[in-house]
Amino acid sequence: MRVGLAARVTLPDALSAMTDAATWLGAHDCQPVLEHDSARAAGLDDRWPTATLEALASQVDLVITFGGDGTLLAAAGAVAHSRVETPVLGVNLGRLGFLTEVARAELTVALEAVRHGHTRVEMRLLLRGRVLRRERVVADRLALNDIVVTRGSLSRMIEIDVDVDREFVCHVKADGLIVATATGSTAYNLSAGGPIVHPTVDAVLLTPIAPHTLTNRPLVLPAAAAIVLRPVDLQSTDVVVTFDGQYGVPLEPDDQIHIDRAAQRLRLLHAGARTHFTMLREKLKWGHW
Amino acid sequence: MRVGLAARVTLPDALSAMTDAATWLGAHDCQPVLEHDSARAAGLDDRWPTATLEALASQVDLVITFGGDGTLLAAAGAVAHSRVETPVLGVNLGRLGFLTEVARAELTVALEAVRHGHTRVEMRLLLRGRVLRRERVVADRLALNDIVVTRGSLSRMIEIDVDVDREFVCHVKADGLIVATATGSTAYNLSAGGPIVHPTVDAVLLTPIAPHTLTNRPLVLPAAAAIVLRPVDLQSTDVVVTFDGQYGVPLEPDDQIHIDRAAQRLRLLHAGARTHFTMLREKLKWGHW
Amino acid sequence: MRVGLAARVTLPDALSAMTDAATWLGAHDCQPVLEHDSARAAGLDDRWPTATLEALASQVDLVITFGGDGTLLAAAGAVAHSRVETPVLGVNLGRLGFLTEVARAELTVALEAVRHGHTRVEMRLLLRGRVLRRERVVADRLALNDIVVTRGSLSRMIEIDVDVDREFVCHVKADGLIVATATGSTAYNLSAGGPIVHPTVDAVLLTPIAPHTLTNRPLVLPAAAAIVLRPVDLQSTDVVVTFDGQYGVPLEPDDQIHIDRAAQRLRLLHAGARTHFTMLREKLKWGHW
Amino acid sequence: MRVGLAARVTLPDALSAMTDAATWLGAHDCQPVLEHDSARAAGLDDRWPTATLEALASQVDLVITFGGDGTLLAAAGAVAHSRVETPVLGVNLGRLGFLTEVARAELTVALEAVRHGHTRVEMRLLLRGRVLRRERVVADRLALNDIVVTRGSLSRMIEIDVDVDREFVCHVKADGLIVATATGSTAYNLSAGGPIVHPTVDAVLLTPIAPHTLTNRPLVLPAAAAIVLRPVDLQSTDVVVTFDGQYGVPLEPDDQIHIDRAAQRLRLLHAGARTHFTMLREKLKWGHW
Repeated sequence: MRVGLAARVTLPDALSAMTDAATWLGAHDCQPVLEHDSARAAGLDDRWPTATLEALASQVDLVITFGGDGTLLAAAGAVAHSRVETPVLGVNLGRLGFLTEVARAELTVALEAVRHGHTRVEMRLLLRGRVLRRERVVADRLALNDIVVTRGSLSRMIEIDVDVDREFVCHVKADGLIVATATGSTAYNLSAGGPIVHPTVDAVLLTPIAPHTLTNRPLVLPAAAAIVLRPVDLQSTDVVVTFDGQYGVPLEPDDQIHIDRAAQRLRLLHAGARTHFTMLREKLKWGHW
Repeated sequence: MRVGLAARVTLPDALSAMTDAATWLGAHDCQPVLEHDSARAAGLDDRWPTATLEALASQVDLVITFGGDGTLLAAAGAVAHSRVETPVLGVNLGRLGFLTEVARAELTVALEAVRHGHTRVEMRLLLRGRVLRRERVVADRLALNDIVVTRGSLSRMIEIDVDVDREFVCHVKADGLIVATATGSTAYNLSAGGPIVHPTVDAVLLTPIAPHTLTNRPLVLPAAAAIVLRPVDLQSTDVVVTFDGQYGVPLEPDDQIHIDRAAQRLRLLHAGARTHFTMLREKLKWGHW
Repeated sequence: MRVGLAARVTLPDALSAMTDAATWLGAHDCQPVLEHDSARAAGLDDRWPTATLEALASQVDLVITFGGDGTLLAAAGAVAHSRVETPVLGVNLGRLGFLTEVARAELTVALEAVRHGHTRVEMRLLLRGRVLRRERVVADRLALNDIVVTRGSLSRMIEIDVDVDREFVCHVKADGLIVATATGSTAYNLSAGGPIVHPTVDAVLLTPIAPHTLTNRPLVLPAAAAIVLRPVDLQSTDVVVTFDGQYGVPLEPDDQIHIDRAAQRLRLLHAGARTHFTMLREKLKWGHW
Repeated sequence: MRVGLAARVTLPDALSAMTDAATWLGAHDCQPVLEHDSARAAGLDDRWPTATLEALASQVDLVITFGGDGTLLAAAGAVAHSRVETPVLGVNLGRLGFLTEVARAELTVALEAVRHGHTRVEMRLLLRGRVLRRERVVADRLALNDIVVTRGSLSRMIEIDVDVDREFVCHVKADGLIVATATGSTAYNLSAGGPIVHPTVDAVLLTPIAPHTLTNRPLVLPAAAAIVLRPVDLQSTDVVVTFDGQYGVPLEPDDQIHIDRAAQRLRLLHAGARTHFTMLREKLKWGHW
């Protein structure tokens, strides 16, 4: 069994947990393969084989990330773009994340579960977003959480015409517009007032950020919806579309963003007993006020 | 073709529109059958055959209602409880309703569409709610919009433990709790801060009303979810569970409410060109501020 | 120095804390006077002088309550209705309340502060609400937190015309309408989506509960505003106006509710170091997510 | 009587209305003085005296603006920075603005009212915001609506420590933070979920934009509050503080923003019968859904 490991390089605890995991895996008949930058940051690049994040996905049976949700999102993106089906498991080094359910103290138990296949796989919806500029695709990316159009600090607000399945839906005047998966419903969407969507609901969320029209409410659409965002009167150059908060594309006038369900899904691994509702209760401190 | 007709008896315009429709249908090889009370209120009970709302559903090929969303909800309830698949079409006599898309001025065009089968059928999810009291089912009803638990004017708030698929989800302290379908997402759910859900999304909404815990947010669950609401410390007798805002059951201590997807769906007829998004834009005045 | 003591009679910890306080005060040259029901519940009615809550206010130099915010609200109401200026201090026996800042463990320190006058007084706005029925005043009450009109479990929603300073402001369709002080802004108002108002802001809040018109937002008015609520089409008899969640008046058709700033204010005593912002942070767990 | 006139130069209707007003004033014993750029855009710079917006304020008895709320905000800023008490009146050329109550069709009636002094003056609170960088004041501006700290399109969110009257209040993680006057409560604040505050309430609003902590709610503080915003961990250079959406200052690490009530107020002129509540009803379409 080959296991890819990637850590947040700026977080010493993440590097140390990755080192422990690699050592444990090596001692238990598994072959660790380290993400190149993480290995170098941890001083391990001559001890185990390494690969870039992009290459890693296709060389291993699963990828474990050490850090926060951002670290897992980066690995998930690399897996998705490699068009492989490698599952991903997240270990959090700070507070519990919605995507990184395994705590540092639970690492060995989780590795045991992984080695014996005592894990649960969830198939999570991925969004595919393409930026079209003068009939050419200038960006084509997948997202596990969300694809977001936001104004920069220089613009007042943005106006976006939204089409769904070739039908005009609404004109949004807002600070921005979030297109989120159920997975991403507990991320930026929640701050903007959107609902929490269980990962097994096959849906896509459209949530305006600080809408100027008070009746513009979060909208839940079927996952199969073909969404087109057409920013209107885009004058300044500081409007950006962002994928999972990690990769941004500055928009130009007349750009269109086409968002669809991706052909593949992400295989998210669960190694512990925490259910989605347990995580919601822990993260949102439900019932603690 | 036999067409059932039911009107809001307190609304003269509804009775008059129903009379016009019956006359038109009679003149075009269709057999109108009038809901008994509507027929009597319109003075038509000796002119065409009549039936109770409950009996109507199984005697006709479709039911047309004249009034508002409430009139259609009542007819939908009767159809659903008769366990037949008779489709329902709504004519609104006041403002456009989310369920009653045909306006008075569009009545003849809609009847033509009905007669020639130029209609579109949407299969809408129905919820089944059962109130369990000391292991006995004391109420068993279907709902097209929502099943709502609310406090009366004497209680301060209610506390409800919510289980989904036999797992504890959260403890809600609020004025009430709405369990809504996508169809009902634009009704009470919207007032309570819930999202708009497209009718083709197979989901159920849990939306607290005026929650005391600020992090208690609307929750979107798969339609197949088995939901159990367990009111806690129910002391006063003025907590009520209401089905589609039409039928209420006062709760007693230790009552449980079991809510599931109903085995059947409601066939909602569309006779015009309005799409769901058109109705949203018209009703919510999107883009008019 | 005469100190009135009142406890939540159903809470053993409250009775025990009251007993400790009375003993301490008696041993330190102060004269405890116990609220009658609390004294009886604690078995102390033959040990110290007692009085009804209403009589207590005018017999003592300050009132200390033991329980939660509800216990203090009841004492505050009695003080206000006695038209005396007796200050009130709250000891909480469960979780920290916005009005009951002293914890059980801080009781002796607080009593020392009281005895030496090392306390801080805040003058809190009181609302006066009068229910007018056919030109007669059928209820005239003061409120420290809020005056709330709510529908009962049988009605669908209520419609209220709101006038401010004899000018029509808006027509509210909602589950209810909250008129709150800054003090009450962290109570029911917060659940209904209203803002947090610092107690030194001289303002009154109008917050609809689950408004049907999505643009109906919480409204902050000057404290001097003369507010008249005129429920419209009141048919059922289960609409109620409630003062501080403690005293309810069922409304009849054509009743009007006149709400003004009361002539007097409540003197709320602070014996500890907690500021308003400290309490907000502790209660709302700001920064803990 | 000398009347300053300023128009939105890119709006032909505004220039034409300004021309009409200047002609009318000239024919009625008043002396129009035109803002320089507006005069040039209207081709009137050789017909009436002109002045820069900054100089205009101290040369006239009142300023009338033609455009939207933005045009009035710019004139109000110029008046405020000139430290004069010249009143300002707004004519809107598009939709009714909260600050520009006079419609094109009402222009002559409004000018008559102005000439005969049949106007009503409202003293509106101004905020003064100073940006402190290494103990130097690098920006010192007044705002009628709001002072806003926002992230740019490159940053994920911003974190701000908020002090009020030298006391730590809260740590905000959000897209941004709005400090608004009652006047500005119906502007950006409303989009971000803040309450509507009547202009006669002497208060300042703190409203987070898309807060990550769900319990971070809009906060209403006394107008006299001394507010200090201390952005934390400011790494990227695209966080900006904006005054009335018109003037932006990019922030550097360790900058602080001090916000206080300005010494002077803006004299806002009303020439028509519309009250604040009338405008709210018209703008928010209250009761129209």
